[in-house]
Amino acid sequence: MKKYKIVLLSGDGIGPEISEVSKKVLKKLSKNHNFDIEIIEKLFGGIAYEKYGTPAPDETLDQCKKSDAVLLACVGDIKYDSLARELRPESGLLKLRSALNLFANIRPVKIRKSLLDASSLKKEIVEHVDLIVVRELIGGIYFGKPRGHITNTKIPKAFNTMVYDSNEIERITEIAIKIANQRNKKICSVDKSNVLEVSQLWRDTVLNITSKDKNISLSNMYVDNAAMQLVRDPGQFDVILTSNLFGDILSDLAAMLTGSIGMLPSASLNNNGPGVFEPVHGSAPDIAGKNIANPIAMLLSASMMLKIGLNEEEAAENLETAIDKVLSKGFRTADLADGSTEVLSCSEIGDKIINEI
Amino acid sequence: MKKYKIVLLSGDGIGPEISEVSKKVLKKLSKNHNFDIEIIEKLFGGIAYEKYGTPAPDETLDQCKKSDAVLLACVGDIKYDSLARELRPESGLLKLRSALNLFANIRPVKIRKSLLDASSLKKEIVEHVDLIVVRELIGGIYFGKPRGHITNTKIPKAFNTMVYDSNEIERITEIAIKIANQRNKKICSVDKSNVLEVSQLWRDTVLNITSKDKNISLSNMYVDNAAMQLVRDPGQFDVILTSNLFGDILSDLAAMLTGSIGMLPSASLNNNGPGVFEPVHGSAPDIAGKNIANPIAMLLSASMMLKIGLNEEEAAENLETAIDKVLSKGFRTADLADGSTEVLSCSEIGDKIINEI
Ligand SMILES: CC(C)[C@H](C(=O)O)[C@@H](O)C(=O)O
Ligand SMILES: CC(C)[C@H](C(=O)O)[C@@H](O)C(=O)O
Repeated sequence: MKKYKIVLLSGDGIGPEISEVSKKVLKKLSKNHNFDIEIIEKLFGGIAYEKYGTPAPDETLDQCKKSDAVLLACVGDIKYDSLARELRPESGLLKLRSALNLFANIRPVKIRKSLLDASSLKKEIVEHVDLIVVRELIGGIYFGKPRGHITNTKIPKAFNTMVYDSNEIERITEIAIKIANQRNKKICSVDKSNVLEVSQLWRDTVLNITSKDKNISLSNMYVDNAAMQLVRDPGQFDVILTSNLFGDILSDLAAMLTGSIGMLPSASLNNNGPGVFEPVHGSAPDIAGKNIANPIAMLLSASMMLKIGLNEEEAAENLETAIDKVLSKGFRTADLADGSTEVLSCSEIGDKIINEI
Repeated sequence: MKKYKIVLLSGDGIGPEISEVSKKVLKKLSKNHNFDIEIIEKLFGGIAYEKYGTPAPDETLDQCKKSDAVLLACVGDIKYDSLARELRPESGLLKLRSALNLFANIRPVKIRKSLLDASSLKKEIVEHVDLIVVRELIGGIYFGKPRGHITNTKIPKAFNTMVYDSNEIERITEIAIKIANQRNKKICSVDKSNVLEVSQLWRDTVLNITSKDKNISLSNMYVDNAAMQLVRDPGQFDVILTSNLFGDILSDLAAMLTGSIGMLPSASLNNNGPGVFEPVHGSAPDIAGKNIANPIAMLLSASMMLKIGLNEEEAAENLETAIDKVLSKGFRTADLADGSTEVLSCSEIGDKIINEI
């Protein structure tokens, strides 16, 4: 029997509730599909700061490194906003990404038929959306040096550096090519090369690498135009390849097109070693502890983990089918309620899904 | 009689066509409202590069500096994309902004009742949109130094610097406060202070300055969330205050919410000296010379010029009313045609508007 060791980081806010559902689901799947899964829970985010004074304790990072995959719920709370930046939950996230060398962030955006009405966009605009954002995750302005505040002058000044070398651009382009080849073979690379030198290198390198694969059709867009096009006609995109900061903005924008951000998963990957799988949504402290959160984005992240991280394709498909069945029967959590559907709690919808597995 | 000297930069693509309409409209308005307007036409953008080898000739910049206001149509064409960056039309734009010290870019986004259906968003989501993006225009990563390519190493590398000092943030915040005070008094400042030091200075400075005006209610959003919120519920915003790069992305996104980017004007201002007034749309080389472009965004830019740049409020209102009348009679250019309306050419719709003045 195959045996996997995964680390579960339930984090802050609604994290523990949706993690409970995920644990149950993974256990049922492991039985049905004949694999053994050891789930090691670790503190991460605000809760780790409370206990150990740091959002990403070494002990947590070490366990993650030794695991087969990491399943992360969500971190953060406005109450930590006044802390020094390196103590905030968000910094923990950046530390985890960098410690595991997770240079590729993958965010599929697809709207489920049964949820078409949730979007703020017209049905005919969103129904064909099926895109993947491939975002570089451990370079660019997020990690660029030098950076900092200049305070010993009359006028305070602060700065950051947006920097890439061609190796960093190459490896993320290769991931995008791999993904595009499993889909419609279209890559749209997004940059701001009409203004930024770092974007010019991005554009040149992407062109250079993709031109080696004759199956791939490459287009380029400036980031302002890409934001527009995502609103105007998101169905035109297949794979969007972009840098860390632009990917942060565009993937959230793309996610919101579906109207149901409680439904979207993501994967952060390295070429080898464990990946981190997490929902796109935040920790929603306002509804934490009320058992009304939507656990599905985390379940879909668990499904990505099964498929990409553990190679358990069948279990992943089983889970996705179960989720679709429950949705098409009209069951919803409160975030997606539209009057004609039955509203269930977080644990209740979890149980419905488990029953379909 | 008041006398104004304006510089008209008709630029590239559809620029000359929509500029023709603007000239006629301005002449009619000057007669009706008793002012004299001298329109000096200068080369700028791709066309200036063709003639003088630079997109922003000194002679053009000098005339602009000596004018009361600059009316700019649009610049650019993919055919210039292979030129060195400093020779491209876009660089001309950056040079103009910087030469005139235009630190404040103002983009109102409002959807005209008669055009509600043009949006890719649902009617009930866009009908209440009435926001203004206030974007810092001559700082940040667009102009930050050091910048460049490092090519004498094994692995090519390129970088840019995102930098602000508190003075730059202060003066743009003051513009936002002034505008907000004429509206709903709400400012949403957008940054990425959970990751970037330069954004932390932005956030702290904006808070510091706005707290001096008790009428203003300030909120802060991370840029990824702002992109989401603009899609989810754009009606929540009054004034969005942000830096150069984020403003570039968010203002285009906000513009596209209306579905009719051929309708949106912008102003770029200094505290004194001439401003530049220009439509939000690009030069649309694919339809250039066909007399089918929509001249209205440029006319609305002329209206902003009359109001803000020349203090000719009445003429500005006259023009806006004329535009609304023509639209509500069902006349449209091709970009906004929806079957039930009459499609006119660029010059035809211009003439209709002139008749209503
Ligand atoms: C929390 C924050 C640091 C993070 C980012 O900007 O990368 C988040 O927005 C994301 O996209 O995962
Ligand atoms: C053409 C380009 C340099 C410019 C910018 O990025 O500022 C444009 O996108 C704009 O918003 O006016």
